[in-house]
Amino acid sequence: MHNKVRTVGIIGKFADAEISGTIYKLSAFLLTKNLRVLLHEHAASVMPGHGLETADHKKIGEICDLCIIVGGDGTMLNAARALFSYGIPLVGINRGRLGFLADISPDTVIERVNDILQGGYIVEERFLLHAAIERGGEYISESNAFNDVVVAKWNMARMIEFETYINDQFVNSQRSDGLILSTPTGSTAYALSGGGPIMHPTINAIVLVPICPHTLSNRPIVVSGDSHIDIVVTDCNYDHAQVTCDGQINFSLFTGDRIHVRKLEKPIRLIHPADHDHFEILREKLRWGTKLD
Amino acid sequence: MHNKVRTVGIIGKFADAEISGTIYKLSAFLLTKNLRVLLHEHAASVMPGHGLETADHKKIGEICDLCIIVGGDGTMLNAARALFSYGIPLVGINRGRLGFLADISPDTVIERVNDILQGGYIVEERFLLHAAIERGGEYISESNAFNDVVVAKWNMARMIEFETYINDQFVNSQRSDGLILSTPTGSTAYALSGGGPIMHPTINAIVLVPICPHTLSNRPIVVSGDSHIDIVVTDCNYDHAQVTCDGQINFSLFTGDRIHVRKLEKPIRLIHPADHDHFEILREKLRWGTKLD
Amino acid sequence: MHNKVRTVGIIGKFADAEISGTIYKLSAFLLTKNLRVLLHEHAASVMPGHGLETADHKKIGEICDLCIIVGGDGTMLNAARALFSYGIPLVGINRGRLGFLADISPDTVIERVNDILQGGYIVEERFLLHAAIERGGEYISESNAFNDVVVAKWNMARMIEFETYINDQFVNSQRSDGLILSTPTGSTAYALSGGGPIMHPTINAIVLVPICPHTLSNRPIVVSGDSHIDIVVTDCNYDHAQVTCDGQINFSLFTGDRIHVRKLEKPIRLIHPADHDHFEILREKLRWGTKLD
Amino acid sequence: MHNKVRTVGIIGKFADAEISGTIYKLSAFLLTKNLRVLLHEHAASVMPGHGLETADHKKIGEICDLCIIVGGDGTMLNAARALFSYGIPLVGINRGRLGFLADISPDTVIERVNDILQGGYIVEERFLLHAAIERGGEYISESNAFNDVVVAKWNMARMIEFETYINDQFVNSQRSDGLILSTPTGSTAYALSGGGPIMHPTINAIVLVPICPHTLSNRPIVVSGDSHIDIVVTDCNYDHAQVTCDGQINFSLFTGDRIHVRKLEKPIRLIHPADHDHFEILREKLRWGTKLD
Repeated sequence: MHNKVRTVGIIGKFADAEISGTIYKLSAFLLTKNLRVLLHEHAASVMPGHGLETADHKKIGEICDLCIIVGGDGTMLNAARALFSYGIPLVGINRGRLGFLADISPDTVIERVNDILQGGYIVEERFLLHAAIERGGEYISESNAFNDVVVAKWNMARMIEFETYINDQFVNSQRSDGLILSTPTGSTAYALSGGGPIMHPTINAIVLVPICPHTLSNRPIVVSGDSHIDIVVTDCNYDHAQVTCDGQINFSLFTGDRIHVRKLEKPIRLIHPADHDHFEILREKLRWGTKLD
Repeated sequence: MHNKVRTVGIIGKFADAEISGTIYKLSAFLLTKNLRVLLHEHAASVMPGHGLETADHKKIGEICDLCIIVGGDGTMLNAARALFSYGIPLVGINRGRLGFLADISPDTVIERVNDILQGGYIVEERFLLHAAIERGGEYISESNAFNDVVVAKWNMARMIEFETYINDQFVNSQRSDGLILSTPTGSTAYALSGGGPIMHPTINAIVLVPICPHTLSNRPIVVSGDSHIDIVVTDCNYDHAQVTCDGQINFSLFTGDRIHVRKLEKPIRLIHPADHDHFEILREKLRWGTKLD
Repeated sequence: MHNKVRTVGIIGKFADAEISGTIYKLSAFLLTKNLRVLLHEHAASVMPGHGLETADHKKIGEICDLCIIVGGDGTMLNAARALFSYGIPLVGINRGRLGFLADISPDTVIERVNDILQGGYIVEERFLLHAAIERGGEYISESNAFNDVVVAKWNMARMIEFETYINDQFVNSQRSDGLILSTPTGSTAYALSGGGPIMHPTINAIVLVPICPHTLSNRPIVVSGDSHIDIVVTDCNYDHAQVTCDGQINFSLFTGDRIHVRKLEKPIRLIHPADHDHFEILREKLRWGTKLD
Repeated sequence: MHNKVRTVGIIGKFADAEISGTIYKLSAFLLTKNLRVLLHEHAASVMPGHGLETADHKKIGEICDLCIIVGGDGTMLNAARALFSYGIPLVGINRGRLGFLADISPDTVIERVNDILQGGYIVEERFLLHAAIERGGEYISESNAFNDVVVAKWNMARMIEFETYINDQFVNSQRSDGLILSTPTGSTAYALSGGGPIMHPTINAIVLVPICPHTLSNRPIVVSGDSHIDIVVTDCNYDHAQVTCDGQINFSLFTGDRIHVRKLEKPIRLIHPADHDHFEILREKLRWGTKLD
């Protein structure tokens, strides 16, 4: 984080009026600290009479020293993809239910944000993936993912076929419902449902998780985060396979399409409270229980 | 099988001219045995000049004492659904690659069929599932499945939500990519890719296999084959979930739709060679290896 | 249950003085109903001055019309193995934490037992497995299991090798840490940890779950409860493999030993409250959550 | 590898006379190249009249520029643990069956070793784990592992209980059969049987794989290879849990024992032929099939 925070952006879950209470409380507090506050336009649109300066992602990214996101992990994913290129640190406030990314409760938001403004925080760097689709020798689409890039069947009951390459080495041909390429951040999301391992959030690794593979020995593979991973769709009618980033951005595939997946060089910087404990969140979310005393 | 076989139906993989050689060899043999042979019209359409009597499924079911299917397991699935109501026994000839259902090689087809005609065979009864979709109190669609009934997301990246009831008892609410309801026959197909157990083909059981469930303790459940299973889709925009039978017949679902799944009372009767060994097929198909001498 | 209950046996968790409160409350209630009460000698030994008639398993089995077991699922497993041959119905009282078998809370024990005495109950039949070990043509040991028979490595870090036969048909050779043969009752115990499916408690099925198999396509197999299953240990120094019944009774194996596993003909009869709901217990124990309203 | 190879060590699978043919062929070739050859004393003991200079691990490690191991992956594991501190590069010759580590066939051994001597090779660095056991404040035992450190139940049918700490942060308490801590090298061995992911051999990561965990959400966890991992056994009678390194070195545990697991700083250097392809070995060993043309 920059030495001194002067300007704070606030982003709220799109079209969710329920979080406005937290935003009012938070912005009032920040103004008393003589900070400039920019409210993202989507949250502003459901908070008539908010009286705050508004901004889009670009302005928040360029001007703010810190961005506070109020919502759940999904809101954090969207904000991370929108703001990563500006290098602005992100803080996540949840809506009463602990998130992996939004780890500050609305009940303690003022104390926690105050601590952070006074330097009491941990910075954690995480990476995003970039997916680019090559068709007939040209790049025709690209997008970013904080959790995962998924190549999967679409609009069809049968399995798809594709080949996987890592650093231009052929890995295998696979018939399955698809493949999840997940960051450490995404390893507790869809990849976990698909049978992938939990990865520590700061490890430099990508996991490839096959979805319902035809061959039972097709298992999750963990590779270096610096790997160049290519997926080539080998048998697929149009609209029968898609690429999806973070479960949000879809793109339809043809046979022969090659999806290039790489780590983005510029990391996301997450700000956590000083007593942040990732394993505590895991225990809570996965109900691992505590010490068996 | 009826005491004496007089009329034999032959069904070939739809629009696959490659299997015509096996059909010619087989029909010539049957005619020398003074049997009446009915060739299904789809196979007939790709065998110009075949000189055989042709028939549709209905005629084969009503007239024939035995039906020989030439193709793979997929062809057997289709024939089983089309013919089950007639109670006609089925024999499966593969195309050189062993199937779970089509377990006679084209190389030995004459010897094997001759043995069967002379009473050297095993009869195995297997059951099908019936799926009926109820919307707003009315049944709007129904179909049968020999392998599996699958309720799954469609045309969408996010999970679906549904409730499961067994004999009208609430089992659970689930967020996942879907649920596979599989017969023992289907337990080595999609259900196995989804993490389900292998079930012996003659056991009276149905397995419910969640696909990529959000909650990690949502595991495959094996229930009696006599169970009445209902799936109620609880959150789903139109065309974002579908029911699929044997990976072939699809039907789009709305929120509130209830899918009733039951065993069909009338079983399929499969005819196997006398030395049929299901575990040998499993070892071959799953590459379990043989005794470790 | 016999038409009229006159004599009730009570069994408590061995050497657990904490459950004596529940037993005192329960026996006082039964005596006011003019029932004869027999307290098992193990519970009696930790309840000095209890003033009740005492008995061993044999006497309880022969005399009582009903046996109430106070403890957890482990106590129920032991009682079931000890009493199954007498055909006496069993009721399970837990110690505050819901069990799959001990499904009555100590808080409601009087109301629930009163209901049962007045005919308000469900009877559920479940089966046990019998394991007999054959060495050099002779049977050298046998025991019963309500949850599972486990053949596993012992006192050794390496995998064991064994062959599996079902109804004298060879299934496969396997290298693994062992094999769990589980009843439906045991399917929510060790077999679930090993990756097996959940089986409905009344289904007539046995599941074979490989423990950490060397070959990834060695998956759980569900077979009819009437199957005769033989496991032959093919490579194992003495004391490097054991058979274990319900995690309690162990027997060391040599190379060549054959373990015969069969269903016991005589079932266990469990008595449940009239509103018993197995899936509710599953939801509670596996934390499936409730309906997602 | 040092610029110029002058002295080559040869290690053979202990007490396996079958590999002597390969060793004779190999040593004869090396002598014609005017290289000094040291044969390890174990192989020498089963090759009477071999006429070669013999040596122990220490001498091989100190004098040789290269060590060729003839055997399987198990022989490679032993050699790696014995020689890692000397920094000597290792080459693995298998006995006709491809290994993950011993990737040169005896049929092509001369050509391949000749290529390597002329500089045609790939060097790959892999790490080992070090396990140290602390009891009552003192370190009482330590050993190294190339594949895995396993803390598991021993001589007992019930689960063990233990706590896991990563970099002194509490992860969870667990009841299970044990925990596998695996290097990338070990990820295709026992950890894979236990449900762990495949890890690329050169990634800097350790995977923790629970064995048959009581809680279904206890899943494999991938952490940085630089992590300090501690396992504390919390409930265990003597000889009911053990630590095992590479399935070979065992040590019995008491309640309260703390097992410290760390990466060894000094890596193993494996020499592969220039056309080495790890994924090709995976495809072969896991039978993934090839491209689906």
